[in-house]
Amino acid sequence: MPTVIEPRTLKGFRDHLPAQALARERLLDVARRVYRGYGFAPIDTPALEYLEILTGKGSEETDKQLYRFTDHGGRDVGMRFDLTVPFARFAAQHVHDLGLPFKRYHMATVWRGENTQRGRYREFMQCDFDTIGTTSPVADLEMVLVVHDLLAAIGIGGFTIRLNDRRVLAGMLGRLGLAERSGTVLRSLDKLGKATREAVAAELAAHQVAAPAVEALLEMAELRGTPQSMLARLGALVSGSEQGEAGVAALESLLAGATAAGVPADRVVVDPSIARGLDYYTGIVLESFLDELPALGSICSGGRYDNLAGLYTKQPLPGVGASLGLDRLLAGLEELGHASKVETAADVFLVHFDGARLPDYLRIAAALRAAGMGVEFFPEPKKVGQQLKLAARRGFPGALVIGGDEFAAGTAQFKNLATQQSVTIDWHGDLRVLVDAVHSQLEAAKHAG
Amino acid sequence: MPTVIEPRTLKGFRDHLPAQALARERLLDVARRVYRGYGFAPIDTPALEYLEILTGKGSEETDKQLYRFTDHGGRDVGMRFDLTVPFARFAAQHVHDLGLPFKRYHMATVWRGENTQRGRYREFMQCDFDTIGTTSPVADLEMVLVVHDLLAAIGIGGFTIRLNDRRVLAGMLGRLGLAERSGTVLRSLDKLGKATREAVAAELAAHQVAAPAVEALLEMAELRGTPQSMLARLGALVSGSEQGEAGVAALESLLAGATAAGVPADRVVVDPSIARGLDYYTGIVLESFLDELPALGSICSGGRYDNLAGLYTKQPLPGVGASLGLDRLLAGLEELGHASKVETAADVFLVHFDGARLPDYLRIAAALRAAGMGVEFFPEPKKVGQQLKLAARRGFPGALVIGGDEFAAGTAQFKNLATQQSVTIDWHGDLRVLVDAVHSQLEAAKHAG
Repeated sequence: MPTVIEPRTLKGFRDHLPAQALARERLLDVARRVYRGYGFAPIDTPALEYLEILTGKGSEETDKQLYRFTDHGGRDVGMRFDLTVPFARFAAQHVHDLGLPFKRYHMATVWRGENTQRGRYREFMQCDFDTIGTTSPVADLEMVLVVHDLLAAIGIGGFTIRLNDRRVLAGMLGRLGLAERSGTVLRSLDKLGKATREAVAAELAAHQVAAPAVEALLEMAELRGTPQSMLARLGALVSGSEQGEAGVAALESLLAGATAAGVPADRVVVDPSIARGLDYYTGIVLESFLDELPALGSICSGGRYDNLAGLYTKQPLPGVGASLGLDRLLAGLEELGHASKVETAADVFLVHFDGARLPDYLRIAAALRAAGMGVEFFPEPKKVGQQLKLAARRGFPGALVIGGDEFAAGTAQFKNLATQQSVTIDWHGDLRVLVDAVHSQLEAAKHAG
Repeated sequence: MPTVIEPRTLKGFRDHLPAQALARERLLDVARRVYRGYGFAPIDTPALEYLEILTGKGSEETDKQLYRFTDHGGRDVGMRFDLTVPFARFAAQHVHDLGLPFKRYHMATVWRGENTQRGRYREFMQCDFDTIGTTSPVADLEMVLVVHDLLAAIGIGGFTIRLNDRRVLAGMLGRLGLAERSGTVLRSLDKLGKATREAVAAELAAHQVAAPAVEALLEMAELRGTPQSMLARLGALVSGSEQGEAGVAALESLLAGATAAGVPADRVVVDPSIARGLDYYTGIVLESFLDELPALGSICSGGRYDNLAGLYTKQPLPGVGASLGLDRLLAGLEELGHASKVETAADVFLVHFDGARLPDYLRIAAALRAAGMGVEFFPEPKKVGQQLKLAARRGFPGALVIGGDEFAAGTAQFKNLATQQSVTIDWHGDLRVLVDAVHSQLEAAKHAG
């Protein structure tokens, strides 16, 4: 016999076993439902792109992390490292078929050969949504509403959406004479929350920002209060700057719109420290955090940009959108103990008790499935205790046990696998009666659980 | 301004625009529902694996088609070319955590750098399901039931599941003295249906199969009739061969089981020409075809194998499973004119008529969404005709038009975008009345369509 090859995954890559894969499918399903509910439509793009497409827009950091190689046809290719660059290429290529404005979602895997650390993998999923081809603030508002509905639907307890507008920051930088160096300054400010105040101050000083300006920037970034008081104070800070005042007005109308659409007031705050490190944002920017686990960082972030696809087309494509970091969120849910251990998506475990009754079991399973229940039928007539143990371990809500005696008496045992309690169902050989009874027992088991 | 980079995809790769992506999401959803309904649980594995894992099991052909490269850490890696090899590695690695029998589905993208031709892409999705860790014929039967339910749920019109058992073929080959050359002979026989009878006969002759044996093989492969008559004739052909008789008995009990589970008799036939090219099948094998488009080839194929993961573990893992060729099926649906042109998953297009009524539109959209309807609200108060044109083109069932006059009168226009007919809704400013009325109109529009 030849030596076996050691079964293992690459560093930074991992398998998803059923409990994890089910949790992920649930999140994808929620995101899909919310995105679709606002009229976003799905698209997909290839995992592999021409290298020049991918390196055109990325930063030096992403270029370094790219999985790249030469394919069979001698083409230099790379694996996508985010969904924004492929969308920019896609939009430039198909804009005439799509019509504008165009709203898309894209939920897919991306790859980055970065150093692995806690919660960081080399393969992970992103769930992006964007509206392109409009500068309307309604699209900005809709981004906030989608992020709200998404996080509410996921059911992760409290969360906070932190809003800012790049124009407020630009207005402030203009008043401090720092407009020319806004990229550098914003990337430093963006580290607040991850780095200490002192570290950020030192970094700004190293960038030749004068001490009074450093103090003014940090004071602004640290402003806290009710939305109304924040808007008033930011308005005073940027007063006289056209850009800054436009940014404050945009935040004000965004908050009013969110309230009109029914978003609870405590879910959205104005936070002048939200800068987003990326250069292309030009208007509203947003991050969102779990109240119970702020250290996880933002789980859904985005903003408005003036031009998505400038590298691939001369047609300006302004837009606004955000991205849910699915795997970061899953890591957060696990850390909070919200990770489910359930390894099945079926409802009923049908015990294979009596091998001679196979046709009856098949009919019962088919009838339960036709009524919308998922049924796992054990393939072999093994010991009942062994079968029930496996069913309980996998997290089935209920098991159905029907042996020769039960068939003769027209009864069945429904066992609630969480409480280990059984009830007898009298079905007199009438499948419809059995199906209804199992359905009721399942509902009861789920509500009690 | 710098020159733009030409936006394009690699040869053999393609973008999915919304109509196509929606069709794919629908199929994935159907497959997920059917697989889960039988107790299969999802898993996922990395797109990249150690090269030695992938080349260990594949054929020379797949080895040649592998996308392979050396990663940042100097490891030789490859992109998965199917979901069977990663599952074998996965099963070997995690079998102690999974428990046996283990039933998984895996719906994911695979890559093959093969020559592109009609309907063949270098990136495509597979939807596999397998039961491992049991030799029970109930698992074989369940494969047939899942394939049946899947193809019925997809709603592609008539289809036929063609069943055979490798042991029947082996029994026949044994009787003809060809047992030693079964691999070669079966790969030739597997070409029947794609190649002519003459071509297959010539190929068998070239493999030194004597003329009477060639004729006997082709005659067997061409047997047609009712399941009962087929079983009788196959039984006679392999009579005396223990293996062959076991195969015929297995087919017989499979057909009985399918009937007991409610599968219509005309959906499943015995077809002795089904051999499957792959060496690892040892029992039941299955292919399935669209009645309207048999030339598309099998859209869902599978079978039983004795040992899944022999390359990665010494623990024998027998199993049975099949794979739905999602992209081949989508190509078939397009060819049959079943491809939908609908580009949205939302139900209602809410016209942005009067910019001053933004808060009202937001409340209306939120109320419709809370009632489970998807709503696209146009971001700008553009000309109504322009908005309705876009909505009709994207395939929205209905549009809701409420201007200043309508708000004043407590009315709304619901426009069926397929018939272009409008009805007036009297809602007297009561959102619940509006929501109920829109829901009824949508139901009517969908049933009429």
